[in-house]
Amino acid sequence: MYIIIVYDINTKRVNKVKSLLRMYLNWIQNSVFEGEIKPTQFKELKIKITEIINKDEDSVIIYKMPPTYKPEKTIIGIEKSPIKNIL
Amino acid sequence: MYIIIVYDINTKRVNKVKSLLRMYLNWIQNSVFEGEIKPTQFKELKIKITEIINKDEDSVIIYKMPPTYKPEKTIIGIEKSPIKNIL
Repeated sequence: MYIIIVYDINTKRVNKVKSLLRMYLNWIQNSVFEGEIKPTQFKELKIKITEIINKDEDSVIIYKMPPTYKPEKTIIGIEKSPIKNIL
Repeated sequence: MYIIIVYDINTKRVNKVKSLLRMYLNWIQNSVFEGEIKPTQFKELKIKITEIINKDEDSVIIYKMPPTYKPEKTIIGIEKSPIKNIL
């Protein structure tokens, strides 16, 4: 499945989450990762995120795409990572 | 169609883009909007974004969902806007 993760995390914890996400997904832009992930990895990742963040302060949102669907992406301006289809 | 917009924009221009996006979509979290939008509005919005940002400095990424599909969303931690399905 293809997922997009956006997050708003306290600076004390954000680098730890960023390093974790790098192991599973592609960094796209400030506070945004995306990529293909297996259901087992997805489950594992959610648990690990929960272990790092402060659930009363931090926010992580995961958008799950339908099976086999990779979202059509439009970039306006600069593209900060190699995964793209430039407008 | 349902879209998700994430952006990384210079502070000089970010509020202008944020006000524009509020007219079309729902604010979700820092630098993230999402919502249902008509093709004509989508075209209009992209033009207006292009008129505001500096294409050499700012980055706006638009993820377009398949027709009639609203992405399954998981929130870990706090949910900063009313559109949600909490984990």
